[in-house]
Amino acid sequence: MRAVDLIRKKRDSGEHSREEIDFLVSSYTRGEIPDYQMAAWLMAVWIRGMSRSELAALTEVMLYSGEVLNLSDLPGNKVDKHSTGGVGDKTSLILAPIVAAGGLNVPMISGRGLGHTGGTLDKLESIPGFNVNLTLDQFRQVLRECGMGLIGQTAEIAPADKKIYALRDATSTVENIGLICASIMSKKLAEGIDALVLDVKSGSGAFMKLEEDAVRLAEVMVDTGKRMGKKVVALITGMDEPLGRAAGHSTEVIECIDVLNGQGPADLRELSIELSAWMFYLGERSKSLEEGRRLAETMIATGLAKQKFKQGIKLQGGDERVVDEPQRLPQARFHVDVPGESSGYVIGTNCEQFGVALAMLGGGREKKEDTIDHGVGLEFRKRIGDPVKKGEPLAAIHYNDDAKLAEAKRLIAASYYLGAEPPREKRPLVRRILGA
Amino acid sequence: MRAVDLIRKKRDSGEHSREEIDFLVSSYTRGEIPDYQMAAWLMAVWIRGMSRSELAALTEVMLYSGEVLNLSDLPGNKVDKHSTGGVGDKTSLILAPIVAAGGLNVPMISGRGLGHTGGTLDKLESIPGFNVNLTLDQFRQVLRECGMGLIGQTAEIAPADKKIYALRDATSTVENIGLICASIMSKKLAEGIDALVLDVKSGSGAFMKLEEDAVRLAEVMVDTGKRMGKKVVALITGMDEPLGRAAGHSTEVIECIDVLNGQGPADLRELSIELSAWMFYLGERSKSLEEGRRLAETMIATGLAKQKFKQGIKLQGGDERVVDEPQRLPQARFHVDVPGESSGYVIGTNCEQFGVALAMLGGGREKKEDTIDHGVGLEFRKRIGDPVKKGEPLAAIHYNDDAKLAEAKRLIAASYYLGAEPPREKRPLVRRILGA
Repeated sequence: MRAVDLIRKKRDSGEHSREEIDFLVSSYTRGEIPDYQMAAWLMAVWIRGMSRSELAALTEVMLYSGEVLNLSDLPGNKVDKHSTGGVGDKTSLILAPIVAAGGLNVPMISGRGLGHTGGTLDKLESIPGFNVNLTLDQFRQVLRECGMGLIGQTAEIAPADKKIYALRDATSTVENIGLICASIMSKKLAEGIDALVLDVKSGSGAFMKLEEDAVRLAEVMVDTGKRMGKKVVALITGMDEPLGRAAGHSTEVIECIDVLNGQGPADLRELSIELSAWMFYLGERSKSLEEGRRLAETMIATGLAKQKFKQGIKLQGGDERVVDEPQRLPQARFHVDVPGESSGYVIGTNCEQFGVALAMLGGGREKKEDTIDHGVGLEFRKRIGDPVKKGEPLAAIHYNDDAKLAEAKRLIAASYYLGAEPPREKRPLVRRILGA
Repeated sequence: MRAVDLIRKKRDSGEHSREEIDFLVSSYTRGEIPDYQMAAWLMAVWIRGMSRSELAALTEVMLYSGEVLNLSDLPGNKVDKHSTGGVGDKTSLILAPIVAAGGLNVPMISGRGLGHTGGTLDKLESIPGFNVNLTLDQFRQVLRECGMGLIGQTAEIAPADKKIYALRDATSTVENIGLICASIMSKKLAEGIDALVLDVKSGSGAFMKLEEDAVRLAEVMVDTGKRMGKKVVALITGMDEPLGRAAGHSTEVIECIDVLNGQGPADLRELSIELSAWMFYLGERSKSLEEGRRLAETMIATGLAKQKFKQGIKLQGGDERVVDEPQRLPQARFHVDVPGESSGYVIGTNCEQFGVALAMLGGGREKKEDTIDHGVGLEFRKRIGDPVKKGEPLAAIHYNDDAKLAEAKRLIAASYYLGAEPPREKRPLVRRILGA
């Protein structure tokens, strides 16, 4: 088998066998196929697409390029949630303690933020001392003790994905449903889970702006997961405006603590309960979704979820006192309001641009190498449907460095779309459920 | 400007500006854009295509990536011919002396054979001492003295093409009309010519099996050449069977000498006269094509073309006595006939396979690094339309090494298609003329 022939085959819209995909990916991961051949193949895949069976093969080969956790010695089922990312999307920090408190294991391997999206690892690192770089042995130990663990992709997990992702990033071959699916699923399935709940975001703050694209991605991920013998369900959820009221790192952690305290914004609470319910249901901890919802609410109401969060933080080296004393989290020194430039109703947002503004202020990464200011954050005061009076604050900016403040302010103001009338209907947060 | 954005643009079927193409190609040639980004871009170009103005820009940028010969101090116009290659296609060795003898300059930068096709440089190197690796200064000197020069692509000529071609070869992005056009035209226009005659082969022995593909390639080459201010004409010519009766290196040189002696196979003579006539006409040495034909025939009949060939060989270090004493050329030690396996008429050939059989016997390259046995050759005894009796020789093989002789023999026999009746009509060699 020669790489050049396989590139030609995909270029000409051919379908690869499992052996061909294995040859390409395994040889590339071992350094036996050069970057330029893989880059040509990735572009051919991007344009020509992959069949469902090619995709399953690619996911499986990438998965088995590294270690696949065997957590069968832990009592209780193992479930996880993956979100395709957005602005203010912080549910992992809420779900993991709820679901672990409810008796399941949540072995969560997460990513970092890039561009307009935040990343779970970055949010966790705003907690003083929190170590996301556990070895797999340490991870297993944390899971055994408290049922939840939140770490980053280690060198042992799906090394093929790591190498291919870096190449995709440099060759404009990232935004392809098949490649995205294989990348996500190979990492998630390496966690040794029984079930996975996918939160596929759709809207102006998501990677998939159009609901139909989100549905297509969800379909292939559900299909790929099921082909590999896992229980998988995908929720298509709205990302037309930020989730919750906070975007940033410590500000999002605080909002998560609010929810674990039975407070916090309604949309974030609702989605957290809904995703937890699905995790309980797929993890066979509840007989119905409704029972799952009640269990999630109970975990909050009893304080067990909050207690679990503290335990998890402590086990990963973090200062668990932040849960009761959020002022221990990094705070920005200054804040300024972003006033509305006219009166009316919020009829929509260019949600992605809030994330861009946050990154501009140091609260996100424009390039992978950028460091993050964990104290910087945005506080959204107005949501879709809210009335706005000219001069009234749309949002507040918590910042340390004012170099790009004026630009960020303008961007945030311009990303609120105001109309004379409120929108006719507000769409529900959960729009479709696939794979159930 | 960033390579990753330009890759994305082409991936999404966008059209590049001249500046964008310049940035990509110039940065790549200087080593500032890595192979993997260029490979992804080439695959996107292969699949999405290029507009005529993108193509002209690419050709021009590749052309000016290196030295462009200025031959304006030489008296007489400068013309060249380029063929897209085939089996037994040896006209360059005939045209160059005819046209130089007729008073024009023929600065010919040629290539080597690969796969089933032969290369002018390899054929010339079968002449003892012939040096195709002249510096550009030596090349200019040879041209000044005799009006013809035949060399290989030097490091100074279109280095962007050299680097990009190697990458295309490794990434299955060779067979694309735009990329082929830019590669050919950038090298040919670097010769400092006024006019170019293109011989675009079509048929089972050509790269373009289908006439429509040959026409498309011819059209873009003519268009690109004209956009750059050159006179260009393209002849679509048949390659359904070998050109002439010989394929190999010294055997083809001998056949060329035959034509220069007023003999040789009719098809080779006809095409050589036709291409010479176009070169005379575009080079303004004749007022009409008909006058060009007569001039070409006169150059042969008077012996002036043959004399010019000797002069050219001598000036490039070769043994010019081979022209009168062909036995001085390398000869294979053995020969064997390939008998017809049944009786009938030749109705067609799988012409490419003759080239493959020749390479198999050492008379061609399977890989770029292979060395060539210049004495090995095939002699075609039967042409399309000829009657064949079972056991009668279809072809003869001149060989030195019998390792793959049986395989080559089988391949040659199988590549002659016999029918009960002769074909209704034999198509003319020159099928269409574009750009005239």
